[in-house]
Amino acid sequence: MTAKTTAPPIDTARDDIDGDGVTPVMDTVVFTDALDLDNGKTLQPFTIAYNTYGTLNADRSNAILICHALTGDQHVANRNPMTGKPGWWSLLVGPGKPVDTNRFFVICANILGGCQGSTGPASINPETGEAYGLTFPVITIGDMVDAQARLVDHLGIDQLFAVIGGSMGGMQVLEWAARHKERVFAAVPIAAAAWHSSQNIAFHEVGRQAVMADPNWMRGDYLKHGVVPRNGLAVARMAAHITYLSEDALHEKFGRNLQNRTDRTFSFDADFQVESYLRHQGSTFVDRFDANSYLYITRAMDYFDMAAEHGDVLAEAFRGTQSRFCVVSFTSDWLYPTRESREIVQALNAVAANVSFVEIESNAGHDAFLLNEPKFFATMTGFINSCAQKRGLPAA
Amino acid sequence: MTAKTTAPPIDTARDDIDGDGVTPVMDTVVFTDALDLDNGKTLQPFTIAYNTYGTLNADRSNAILICHALTGDQHVANRNPMTGKPGWWSLLVGPGKPVDTNRFFVICANILGGCQGSTGPASINPETGEAYGLTFPVITIGDMVDAQARLVDHLGIDQLFAVIGGSMGGMQVLEWAARHKERVFAAVPIAAAAWHSSQNIAFHEVGRQAVMADPNWMRGDYLKHGVVPRNGLAVARMAAHITYLSEDALHEKFGRNLQNRTDRTFSFDADFQVESYLRHQGSTFVDRFDANSYLYITRAMDYFDMAAEHGDVLAEAFRGTQSRFCVVSFTSDWLYPTRESREIVQALNAVAANVSFVEIESNAGHDAFLLNEPKFFATMTGFINSCAQKRGLPAA
Repeated sequence: MTAKTTAPPIDTARDDIDGDGVTPVMDTVVFTDALDLDNGKTLQPFTIAYNTYGTLNADRSNAILICHALTGDQHVANRNPMTGKPGWWSLLVGPGKPVDTNRFFVICANILGGCQGSTGPASINPETGEAYGLTFPVITIGDMVDAQARLVDHLGIDQLFAVIGGSMGGMQVLEWAARHKERVFAAVPIAAAAWHSSQNIAFHEVGRQAVMADPNWMRGDYLKHGVVPRNGLAVARMAAHITYLSEDALHEKFGRNLQNRTDRTFSFDADFQVESYLRHQGSTFVDRFDANSYLYITRAMDYFDMAAEHGDVLAEAFRGTQSRFCVVSFTSDWLYPTRESREIVQALNAVAANVSFVEIESNAGHDAFLLNEPKFFATMTGFINSCAQKRGLPAA
Repeated sequence: MTAKTTAPPIDTARDDIDGDGVTPVMDTVVFTDALDLDNGKTLQPFTIAYNTYGTLNADRSNAILICHALTGDQHVANRNPMTGKPGWWSLLVGPGKPVDTNRFFVICANILGGCQGSTGPASINPETGEAYGLTFPVITIGDMVDAQARLVDHLGIDQLFAVIGGSMGGMQVLEWAARHKERVFAAVPIAAAAWHSSQNIAFHEVGRQAVMADPNWMRGDYLKHGVVPRNGLAVARMAAHITYLSEDALHEKFGRNLQNRTDRTFSFDADFQVESYLRHQGSTFVDRFDANSYLYITRAMDYFDMAAEHGDVLAEAFRGTQSRFCVVSFTSDWLYPTRESREIVQALNAVAANVSFVEIESNAGHDAFLLNEPKFFATMTGFINSCAQKRGLPAA
């Protein structure tokens, strides 16, 4: 193993930055051995930034890997040091939560291609001394997972007790279960799909075109010029954000309510609350996310097609699996609708895998997996406890 | 009446530019009397460009007004002189078609705020000698309809036999039925709604922000500077275009098919057919549409709320109506879903209006109203013939 730890090792850097009892270890590891990418190229070296929570048990059997979504990061359960906001899945992950950091050793890594410490297009290319920009290789969900596997090696863990993720995180879960079968005891793909639909590709393409249309994008070289394609990235985020909510959620949240005014202004101001909300989503996103990362990650999602990787037969991706699966969808999710989860379940059934499927009633849309959905939490608690028993881990 | 005809009068300029038997009269009329707008201002003078097809009968009772959608124009049934494409509704309107130009005198006008000859933000403001740009008043669907009413006056028609339109055209139909009750014998709002939903406002806001983010927009003054916000408008069109199709339609049309290549290029090229299609939609739209018109028309749609105009009781908009209504929706239209058509029907029922409601089974999404949908055409034929009989017009 050729990993170089650039931050304090596990269990020494605990700092309760959240102030509510969640104590992450934040670490960064540089892998000097090349990573073989799906596009035929290699990446060398590469860095993975990750957080851990809780304690790895003696036989290293209680590790849970959380995979984040498009714009997520490694701060799954602790307050985000940059934004000051709670961890993006702190409702699900933490002491006494369904993914209980008092029982499990929880790992969450910024994905390869990301912009929160792991190597991505904004990182410095050691060969040139400048940011990669568009010279960064186009990566896949599988590449992200292979990079995570190197991290799991580095942590000395042979088999993860569970791999859990929603949206693009769920795609990573599926790749883990396909590429590293023997290393996954339980797999929980949530609000995900085994391939990216035509409509989803279309929305991503709109976002990419919005970024690329911004003159400050400068063919990806904006960092060299000291500028940022703020406007284009904000538009991309606005378009994407609509797809994360259901029409019902938008209607209940905003309806046609006006923003701090009693009547239409007959102008192009943000008269409606929904306009003001979207503009806010766009402008705050730009402060925390790299535009090229957005291009690369959306591209990886569009390229994601696990059936195509296995002779157009999705079931072949999972043949021989011994993992326990819990597939979760939400009724009002139109980005990754329930039927796409059912396709995963059917493929798993075709190879006689051990699979549960739960469709959660919710009107929150795709974002439901991030929100307070008691039935979802109950599902997670039940599945995790059942698997823990089978794995011989102590009960809650 | 203070209208000045700037093109040959009706029935003299026939020219079969389509080459398939559809012979429009293309005319332009300048109204010198001020138009009172919903924002409290006036517009003076204003021009309406319109086409007519067929012959007005002796008692002027066979006129049908077609109202176009956001990016439509007056070339409903003839080949478009600018794009060379068939009329946008030539499947529905023409000799022997459901809206039969051999029987009816069909009128279609470019909307106020448009960019195909009627006065809009790209028109020259006579007070300054320069294009209006953002000094053009923010108009409403009701303003568009009031301008059309002036055209109908000009043509010497007291009552239209029918007003027909889809999408934003359907909104105009509803305003006609509310504002000019006695002038509408039959009204056909198709794939429309009585108010614009939060989700639809959100998509429009993304489009507007894309236009405004383009440096070539120049706060609306691009025409003065000899530039066009092509990139921003193209992104706006791409985002909107996704909403016009159902996910099923996108899946059937494109799926994950690659565009003229056998494998992914691992780049940001348009690998997928759906990407290539959207880019084409964006770039061709820019050649035929004015960016500021796009802002103004989407704003008018967002402001559209017929209940709010009538004390928050939609039925009040139609109280006292004697018009015959045929409300049409399509099963896979997620932009103006069937439940929004049902709200119109319920309001009409509440004032005991004469109303038929038909939901057409189609997987084409919102665009279904523009496509070859035999059940839709049969509905239109049946409703028009029934109304023609009641109006004492000769049978087909």
